[in-house]
Amino acid sequence: MSAQLFDFKPGFNWNSVQPETLEQFNLWRKQGRLGFLDLPYNLTLHRDTAELAEMYRRKHGTLFVAGIGGSSLGLRAILSALNDQSGRKVIVADSPDSRVISRAVANASPRNSLISVVTKSGGTAETLSIFMELRRKLGKDAPVVAITDPVNGQLRELAEKKGWSTLPVPANVGGRFSVLSPVGLFPAAFAGIDTAGLLRGAAEIVEDFETNSGKSLAAVIAGAFLSRFKSHPVHVFMPYSDYLYDTALWFAQLWAESLGKAVDLNGNTVATGQTPLACRGPADQHSLVQLFMEGPADKTVTIVTEGNPENTEPQPGEFSDQPAMNYLEGRNPDILRMAEAEATSTALSERGLPVNRLHLPCINAGYLGQVFMALEIATVLTGLALGVDPLNQPGVERGKLLAYKAMGREGY
Amino acid sequence: MSAQLFDFKPGFNWNSVQPETLEQFNLWRKQGRLGFLDLPYNLTLHRDTAELAEMYRRKHGTLFVAGIGGSSLGLRAILSALNDQSGRKVIVADSPDSRVISRAVANASPRNSLISVVTKSGGTAETLSIFMELRRKLGKDAPVVAITDPVNGQLRELAEKKGWSTLPVPANVGGRFSVLSPVGLFPAAFAGIDTAGLLRGAAEIVEDFETNSGKSLAAVIAGAFLSRFKSHPVHVFMPYSDYLYDTALWFAQLWAESLGKAVDLNGNTVATGQTPLACRGPADQHSLVQLFMEGPADKTVTIVTEGNPENTEPQPGEFSDQPAMNYLEGRNPDILRMAEAEATSTALSERGLPVNRLHLPCINAGYLGQVFMALEIATVLTGLALGVDPLNQPGVERGKLLAYKAMGREGY
Repeated sequence: MSAQLFDFKPGFNWNSVQPETLEQFNLWRKQGRLGFLDLPYNLTLHRDTAELAEMYRRKHGTLFVAGIGGSSLGLRAILSALNDQSGRKVIVADSPDSRVISRAVANASPRNSLISVVTKSGGTAETLSIFMELRRKLGKDAPVVAITDPVNGQLRELAEKKGWSTLPVPANVGGRFSVLSPVGLFPAAFAGIDTAGLLRGAAEIVEDFETNSGKSLAAVIAGAFLSRFKSHPVHVFMPYSDYLYDTALWFAQLWAESLGKAVDLNGNTVATGQTPLACRGPADQHSLVQLFMEGPADKTVTIVTEGNPENTEPQPGEFSDQPAMNYLEGRNPDILRMAEAEATSTALSERGLPVNRLHLPCINAGYLGQVFMALEIATVLTGLALGVDPLNQPGVERGKLLAYKAMGREGY
Repeated sequence: MSAQLFDFKPGFNWNSVQPETLEQFNLWRKQGRLGFLDLPYNLTLHRDTAELAEMYRRKHGTLFVAGIGGSSLGLRAILSALNDQSGRKVIVADSPDSRVISRAVANASPRNSLISVVTKSGGTAETLSIFMELRRKLGKDAPVVAITDPVNGQLRELAEKKGWSTLPVPANVGGRFSVLSPVGLFPAAFAGIDTAGLLRGAAEIVEDFETNSGKSLAAVIAGAFLSRFKSHPVHVFMPYSDYLYDTALWFAQLWAESLGKAVDLNGNTVATGQTPLACRGPADQHSLVQLFMEGPADKTVTIVTEGNPENTEPQPGEFSDQPAMNYLEGRNPDILRMAEAEATSTALSERGLPVNRLHLPCINAGYLGQVFMALEIATVLTGLALGVDPLNQPGVERGKLLAYKAMGREGY
């Protein structure tokens, strides 16, 4: 019997991904280019990650993670959704900002702290700057865990020289696809989060894709998203739960960086891309929804919900004589939140915007792992269908080069 | 001698706002429709706000604010930028989510806590639901401060019946223009923030506008933003400081809700609007910038910087033998952050996107007050230039109605 998967429903006519897209995906997989698909099955890597986290958990209360982009967004998504904040503390430091870093370490005891420096290439300027500032402030007593390429890069070399603990980011797993590698799982395990559950959920999506191909959940998402990719330049991704807002920001990177491309796989100029807009329902109902309802009809919307609060009747209470409040008496705020997700979906659909619904029965490691893997597969499928390389990011080089120049970094 | 104002420079050819737009603005002001312009001069209101905050500060350590949209975004911007977290605690509760609220009150002592319920209309469903949940969890011993319309609405009536403290949101100040009313200033004063400084900064912008009209800072911003409003459907607002990210989210509401309109002032269908995209530099360099550099050229970008870190030479240190790190040795991370803002501005301009630069000499109450007022005036000017009403938000009614219906709220 197959596992229960989260629910996804596009509220409009759409086309599935084409068989040739699926073929190309499977070819890339065979060529070993889609390493993220293997992460749920890399039990050795997961065991090493969990054991190292367990070892440090015994002696250390706070982990500072220096990392940015793909080395922080997935981790933030995991922590927001699953960290009940009852155990060890994980602080994600992704701003090269002396005040932000000072504030982060203000209450830390150096002997109780651990620093993880996370950069696949081993050379990311912000990450190394943040790491060096953390090390200056916490001192050399705080142990270091370097998470980087298994073989290449200056951080790998340095870590070996210094005798720091290390964990690998597999060579064929790019930053924005690395959440289920040690990048996301080492800090998650340190925080006491169910990392095995994350991998199990992800594996369920891979198995569904292998079994059901074009009818799998990941392919259905790809088909629906792709159908409105060119007609609607903005993709609003709007979870009705603060616990999933960082997942929306993780998806924003995945979608923007994978599909925003100047040239296609044949070298033709295309300037393709759809702007992801991470929103917070219901807060953004009171901020951006006016624009969605009345402004240019250039948006497709994915409304994300979780849970199934029972819609109970109002109960008598302190404010039962207030018409603005009596209907809320004795009722859980979650009932209102779900009613608003429903109402906003309907209003936006009536307005003519294509609205997808993504629903998790609850927020747990299994469903979050499913979401990660399903959106990763869907993004690669979308890229291949568009004819662009979803795995590279050549556009960020120019800015890097200019920044290095200004900083006098040599040999770049 | 005039006060120092923050710096704003569009990096492209643009047209200033037209004289007739300025005339219409001044007409609306005379008609009393632009109440936000008077807030810096309403000394009685500021005194009442500060005194009430001071009274509660003496006995209470934590303020819970139930508010959403215009009743939370400006406050969040103030707290992120200016709260050094050394004094009284302010917790903004803008999610109708039982788990979020439970976690927020988990460590609160009911006798040490104070609840503020903020809704201008007095009927905002989420705000009242959150307030009722806070009150159920904290008990009736926690005093309540209601911030609402000075005369109308059910919350005003209820507060008087219950004997709660109240502060007014002036009738001619809409939610998204209310940050310098008690909505933002009561919690800010409770946290110990320099509210007089915020108002002084805002007044400096009003005076600059009155003196220099079309050449004032606010009008220059309006002219530059307006020049790329229709040609570039997405406006990226990207502070290179985490302390200003909530200011970007505040601006997103102001821009989206004021200018995203189905009809113009003459009742013609226009469906106008520009999608604001709040970003975090440098983090979003590793997330969205690939799309900005290579995707559709549909974006104008406002890069926001603060401070003037001295670009010192690298110093010898622990990592001086590492080519990926030696140029960072002994140098403040802020130098890198500023170099990246500069580099990304240049790279995006080279790519052909219109880039504005907004620079604050430092983050303090005065400059933040300036930013609030300048962007508010600029937004109203832009709306009038586009011929739409920047003060209403008719598009959110449909969703509200559907949600109320689902909840069985009567008499709506």
